[in-house]
Amino acid sequence: MNKSAKGFVREVSLPQIHDPRGDLTFVEGGNHIPFEIRRVYYLYNVPVDSERGGHAHRELEQVVFALSGSFRMRIDDGTTKSDYWLRDPRKGLYISKMIWREMDAFSQGAVCMVLASHRYDEADYFRNYDDFRAEVESHQA
Amino acid sequence: MNKSAKGFVREVSLPQIHDPRGDLTFVEGGNHIPFEIRRVYYLYNVPVDSERGGHAHRELEQVVFALSGSFRMRIDDGTTKSDYWLRDPRKGLYISKMIWREMDAFSQGAVCMVLASHRYDEADYFRNYDDFRAEVESHQA
Repeated sequence: MNKSAKGFVREVSLPQIHDPRGDLTFVEGGNHIPFEIRRVYYLYNVPVDSERGGHAHRELEQVVFALSGSFRMRIDDGTTKSDYWLRDPRKGLYISKMIWREMDAFSQGAVCMVLASHRYDEADYFRNYDDFRAEVESHQA
Repeated sequence: MNKSAKGFVREVSLPQIHDPRGDLTFVEGGNHIPFEIRRVYYLYNVPVDSERGGHAHRELEQVVFALSGSFRMRIDDGTTKSDYWLRDPRKGLYISKMIWREMDAFSQGAVCMVLASHRYDEADYFRNYDDFRAEVESHQA
């Protein structure tokens, strides 16, 4: 295998139609984001002291948005760690495959929406950090 | 043309993974809803006295959710009118083609998310109610 398994993240800015009747933001698969939208999921009723995530994906790509409130994404590509705050419904975080992610610091009433490139497949998950690290290191050899 | 252009709506219940760390609901195109997800859009920063909508689609199908707060969907198939309250993130409203819809009674901080079967196409819209009614009547002849 080659080194292409190394993951990366980047911010995605979506269009906003600003209107006195409310703001509207839209996203089309294969247009504003680099994959077709096979699955949408959302987190809500999240206690403010909650921690979520704690996994990585072999192939799945995602874009994460805060549609209400805010939270922190803690990102780890197996080599370096970085934090991103999500608080603007127009600004998502694209997360490639092979990225360990955790989420915390949810504000009261926060809503997290995720657009995903594949349907659910448990075999695509790394749920153990050491297994994830070992896979990353195998591509750095 | 045949009478299949007559629209309809129905409620869609999605799965919920209930968890003390927060609730998660997911939806896959072609699985939980009857179309692939080509476009996602969301409304936010909506004033409580706002009215949205006021259009119908020739072909587009949608499922509408309240991810936070609540609002009312006023539905009109050209013959009969009905109201639906959206307030549960798990419960969406499927809206077929040829349905006139308006939205109002937004609660403070409400977030409306819509999954749509097609990319944006202005030619797919009826923006004038009389044009919409005339099209419905042409299928009832």
